[in-house]
Amino acid sequence: MLAASRNHPTSTIPVNTLGRLSLFRRLLHEQLAGGVRQIYSHQLAGLAVSTAAQVRRDLMTIGFSGSPRKGYAIQELVEAINAVLARSVETSAALVGVGNLGRAILAYFGNRQPVRFAAAFDRAPEKTGRILHGCRCYPVEQMAEIVAREGIHVGVIAVPAGEAQAVSNQLILAGVKGILNFAPIRLRVPTGLYVENVDLMMALDRVAYFAHELQDQGLT
Amino acid sequence: MLAASRNHPTSTIPVNTLGRLSLFRRLLHEQLAGGVRQIYSHQLAGLAVSTAAQVRRDLMTIGFSGSPRKGYAIQELVEAINAVLARSVETSAALVGVGNLGRAILAYFGNRQPVRFAAAFDRAPEKTGRILHGCRCYPVEQMAEIVAREGIHVGVIAVPAGEAQAVSNQLILAGVKGILNFAPIRLRVPTGLYVENVDLMMALDRVAYFAHELQDQGLT
Repeated sequence: MLAASRNHPTSTIPVNTLGRLSLFRRLLHEQLAGGVRQIYSHQLAGLAVSTAAQVRRDLMTIGFSGSPRKGYAIQELVEAINAVLARSVETSAALVGVGNLGRAILAYFGNRQPVRFAAAFDRAPEKTGRILHGCRCYPVEQMAEIVAREGIHVGVIAVPAGEAQAVSNQLILAGVKGILNFAPIRLRVPTGLYVENVDLMMALDRVAYFAHELQDQGLT
Repeated sequence: MLAASRNHPTSTIPVNTLGRLSLFRRLLHEQLAGGVRQIYSHQLAGLAVSTAAQVRRDLMTIGFSGSPRKGYAIQELVEAINAVLARSVETSAALVGVGNLGRAILAYFGNRQPVRFAAAFDRAPEKTGRILHGCRCYPVEQMAEIVAREGIHVGVIAVPAGEAQAVSNQLILAGVKGILNFAPIRLRVPTGLYVENVDLMMALDRVAYFAHELQDQGLT
């Protein structure tokens, strides 16, 4: 898996199920936008490239079941997923590291995510004071103050490997409770605090490995 | 997991082990650069935020064992990992979609990865013909020609969700054997072809969920 998450808190909902609920919600929003009101588990599975059994298991985890004849009522299902993930509606996040990757992260999440990027931090003076994709950039020295003021719970780390552990420590001291880490190292954090690593090198190594395996098998 | 990989080919090495080997190699290179020659499993586990038992299991998978007294010889271990992942030394990749995220991907991998970005593709005429982070950008119409000419096996998709399936089909027709997908949808690909999804929204939703759970528990 891309995301090697260490000591995450015990949740009633498994971490992989949470990920799929996030995907389902996104796919269901698209269906609603297209005027669709009901969906069968096998149809949702088709969109998610999963199985109908998996979809039904995941939705049972959050206590939602459909009708065998009509399927799931999409609006209700979205609301049921929101009731689980909803806290993220009010989540404020901070980005640390406003380089190429950091700017792309801000652009990517922009306005299409319930998580709001309330602040970005960088140690380069020429980057601070600017507003990037709607997010103001502050000097790292102001992290504790801004994180407290904005009620920021999530930190996104996009600094070089050598700086990531120090940034992680600083974010946690400032009050952040979860970290999305793009730096190509593994962070040490207090027990219970959730870290999700987006390890792009690992991902590319793995794709390259399987691509060559397939090539070697001559399955063209 | 961040990476929901569907129908990947049966490999002798589990996909999670491959990911950790990629991480170990990166960490070991740093140790070598710092003049360290030998490492114990618990030391490597410390760097990888894993366990000594896991490290030993992973390295046994590739037939490598250390000495209980001296640990692992780092240079030999790197070579053993290379022998497994080595194919990626000669891997050529193509990026499709030269937006904010695509440019950040090119900048991120730059020259620090054994995978070479041999080409980028975009449908916007103003982007083609340019060289970005050492990689030339071509019109998508030339994909089949360039992929064949450059021996490209890996495709990296960084286009909007609505275009990703068509781009994936085009890459596979052109001869690509593995895909790293950043678009927030699930791709349908022929059986055996490996897809790794980097689903940033899912990752952020999950971090936000656990951050709030921790907050609610008052574990400050």
